[in-house]
Amino acid sequence: MINEQKKKYLETREKLHALNHAFVVLGWDSETEAPIASHDKRGDVIGTLSNMYNDLLFDEKYVESVNFLYENKEQLEPLFKREIEIVKKNLDSTLKLPKELLFENSVVCAKASPAWVEAKTKNDFSIFAPYLEKIVDIQRQMIKYLETPSLKGYDVLLDQYEEGMTQVKYDEFFNLLKKELVPLIKKISDKEYSHNLAFSKLKYSIDKQKQFAKYIAKVMCFDYDRGLDKESEHPFTSGNSRYDVRLTNHYYEDMFTSSIFSMIHELGHATFEQQISQDLDDTALGGCSAMALHESQSRFYENIVGRSYEFWKTHYSNLQETFKEELGNVSLDDFYHFINKAECSLIRTEADELTYPLHIMIRYDIEQKLLNKEVEVKDLPIVWNKAYKEYLGVDVPSDSLGVLQDVHWSGGSFGYFPTYALGSAYSAQFYNAMKKDFDVDSAFGEKDLSKINNWLLEHVHKFGDSKRPVDILKDATGEEFNPKYYIEYLKEKYTKLYNLK
Amino acid sequence: MINEQKKKYLETREKLHALNHAFVVLGWDSETEAPIASHDKRGDVIGTLSNMYNDLLFDEKYVESVNFLYENKEQLEPLFKREIEIVKKNLDSTLKLPKELLFENSVVCAKASPAWVEAKTKNDFSIFAPYLEKIVDIQRQMIKYLETPSLKGYDVLLDQYEEGMTQVKYDEFFNLLKKELVPLIKKISDKEYSHNLAFSKLKYSIDKQKQFAKYIAKVMCFDYDRGLDKESEHPFTSGNSRYDVRLTNHYYEDMFTSSIFSMIHELGHATFEQQISQDLDDTALGGCSAMALHESQSRFYENIVGRSYEFWKTHYSNLQETFKEELGNVSLDDFYHFINKAECSLIRTEADELTYPLHIMIRYDIEQKLLNKEVEVKDLPIVWNKAYKEYLGVDVPSDSLGVLQDVHWSGGSFGYFPTYALGSAYSAQFYNAMKKDFDVDSAFGEKDLSKINNWLLEHVHKFGDSKRPVDILKDATGEEFNPKYYIEYLKEKYTKLYNLK
Repeated sequence: MINEQKKKYLETREKLHALNHAFVVLGWDSETEAPIASHDKRGDVIGTLSNMYNDLLFDEKYVESVNFLYENKEQLEPLFKREIEIVKKNLDSTLKLPKELLFENSVVCAKASPAWVEAKTKNDFSIFAPYLEKIVDIQRQMIKYLETPSLKGYDVLLDQYEEGMTQVKYDEFFNLLKKELVPLIKKISDKEYSHNLAFSKLKYSIDKQKQFAKYIAKVMCFDYDRGLDKESEHPFTSGNSRYDVRLTNHYYEDMFTSSIFSMIHELGHATFEQQISQDLDDTALGGCSAMALHESQSRFYENIVGRSYEFWKTHYSNLQETFKEELGNVSLDDFYHFINKAECSLIRTEADELTYPLHIMIRYDIEQKLLNKEVEVKDLPIVWNKAYKEYLGVDVPSDSLGVLQDVHWSGGSFGYFPTYALGSAYSAQFYNAMKKDFDVDSAFGEKDLSKINNWLLEHVHKFGDSKRPVDILKDATGEEFNPKYYIEYLKEKYTKLYNLK
Repeated sequence: MINEQKKKYLETREKLHALNHAFVVLGWDSETEAPIASHDKRGDVIGTLSNMYNDLLFDEKYVESVNFLYENKEQLEPLFKREIEIVKKNLDSTLKLPKELLFENSVVCAKASPAWVEAKTKNDFSIFAPYLEKIVDIQRQMIKYLETPSLKGYDVLLDQYEEGMTQVKYDEFFNLLKKELVPLIKKISDKEYSHNLAFSKLKYSIDKQKQFAKYIAKVMCFDYDRGLDKESEHPFTSGNSRYDVRLTNHYYEDMFTSSIFSMIHELGHATFEQQISQDLDDTALGGCSAMALHESQSRFYENIVGRSYEFWKTHYSNLQETFKEELGNVSLDDFYHFINKAECSLIRTEADELTYPLHIMIRYDIEQKLLNKEVEVKDLPIVWNKAYKEYLGVDVPSDSLGVLQDVHWSGGSFGYFPTYALGSAYSAQFYNAMKKDFDVDSAFGEKDLSKINNWLLEHVHKFGDSKRPVDILKDATGEEFNPKYYIEYLKEKYTKLYNLK
């Protein structure tokens, strides 16, 4: 009986995976090269395929097989047991939603993505607004269907991206951050700044930026036999399996470090995906669906490694070589201070480590209000600009640099942003644990990052979804989540950088 | 009742189209950028999706709906009637084949394509041979299932690519060509050649070739809002709809005209696809499945337009501007003679118009023998090289430049090649008809080809699959297929070029 149910389950899993594979490639194509006039039909196609996907999920025999296997999970081998637990949880959520709503959601998101790109390019929020209104409406409806006695409103979404996280917990975390970081930011902005950053205003050839991005990929040991990189409006990483991991970057002539740190960030995600154990191939555990954990890896590489002095001590000469004219006379010290300059600014992805969490808090506040109907989509630009003035003291000159800057809402991702701050905090906790095992800082300065990659492979990456993120964190660091490492890391780094003592 | 059956049919059609859309994009991705280690899993995914596709086709209710609509076709509106006729014909063929064979075929072809690329790159036929053996075996099996009293062996495949074509008809056509063209080729090779073609041996920057390819796309009025171009090992065109038409090109430093004529050729296919009537959107008629007709368009643009004196009289100055150093001192006349040099050579896609059909005849002969088991896959390199010596008098120096040069067999396309020669012949017949309506040759020299495009839109392109190719040819030219226009065109052109009178 158990074998029969398992067979049924595996048959459907194979089809679901094949459709997921198609979704990943279609999404990649839409974001990176599909012609503009094709997006509308593409949206319909995604809708039809999603319907087929949901037909498989809602199929009685499949549901029966998952339920049966779940009820008999103690008889399953451990990995398969874990798989069934995850599948059962997700399936239970999905089955609460009407199929029509799932269909509508997939069609709207497929069409919203190019609309967002167009709106951002043309600095015209009204192009994107009608799509966003639909998306928010769908999210509100979904919450209603998914609510339980213990999980209400925005918490439903928060829990989807990081199991167990709630508004109460995020509030506590963000309040602690505010309390500790805002005074530090204040101290820094009161300090006189002595570094000459004229070089940062120059134009940097995009071809050369791409060349340096390839160098970074080599330093990070990215395996191009199992992946590729490309350009898109908003950098992202997506993957079908450890054999096919794809990332994008965006290059700006007038912000040359943007592409460097986006590249390192996305390569952080990509390294995770490429290092997931081969044993999990074809199972439902061969990815990582825990967003804060994923983000902890990208932010670890981007900030803790990529903005460290040790890293650039080794690689700055290559950057200088690439941009002889622009950086030939710029000292490593000036460059290092530039990439770590704490400054209240407009764009989240370009923000320094210290002010970054404030960008997240803004989105976290707005999402709550939007889902609780305290704010409507049409008012978002005003609300956004007000929040940036309040939290960061900056005036937003255009919606492209304001409310339209992030891709997330166009894909229906609400409750995702807070995991970025949480991920940053996890990354500092991993960093602390890693230091007990070897001389991490000097490993940052080696010609490639294989030592770092290996530690993360063993303690984090190889598990994919086969281990709960809380367990990965606990087993790797010896304790549960503790934000003190993050705060200590930031305080120590910035106190030293700005000579605050 | 008819509405009920129509509803069922349309529901399934939507799903089939969505899966087809996924196949096109997955294929495009595999050919243009998917990482090398991903191909194996990609093959499995294609296999699973093909199974899902075939499950839809084999579904009793769907088959019933097609049969019912076919039996009542006189009650359908004309376009829908034509759609059902085509669908019924294809479905009847498919239902004759075992599902397992269809599955095997899709998996093998998905994996064979990257193996062919690798084999060609490494000049190692043995990498590709095991895949080709499987493919040939599957083709042989398919023929057995599809044979009818009137359609046997290779004819089964020939008919699939061009309805009504048989070995008897192709033999007649090819024999006529041989009789007329071989003496012409002989005369030409006996003539002393007076043009200085030293410029053709130079290296031409690939970036500049790409720049000129974009210029060509503009001249041909390709709509980039509804399409894109990229690179791949073998140039091809694929499309999802008139809103998403994609073509590839391949650039060689040492053969600069190769990318020019591949571009024009693929743009010929692409123009056809982009000009199919909007009325056919979402129907099963919104493409063109008649291969000789499709090829007649690509070869019309490539040869009749693209190798004409009038065309280059207008555009040669731009080419000279692009390659100042290499072509600055080369006369239009020398360039024109170079791109029309008749010469027995190794590579089909680089062949001149006159010797091109001989390349096709070689493949036609080999395919027959392969399918009839007179030749086995392992012997192909020897058989190939012998045929090139016999037909074209050339020695094949390597399999990359020999039996591995074409992509077709890796995709299971047997019976396709002969449509290329037939398409060339159609194109001359269209050319002749077009000349009755306006001054075609001077239209070749206009700054863009919109006049030509418009005539083809009205007489050929807009119909897609909504009209039988034989009817398109007849209505556009006033008569049935007649190879004399092709032979006359070639004789006239080459007699003049080589001053044979």
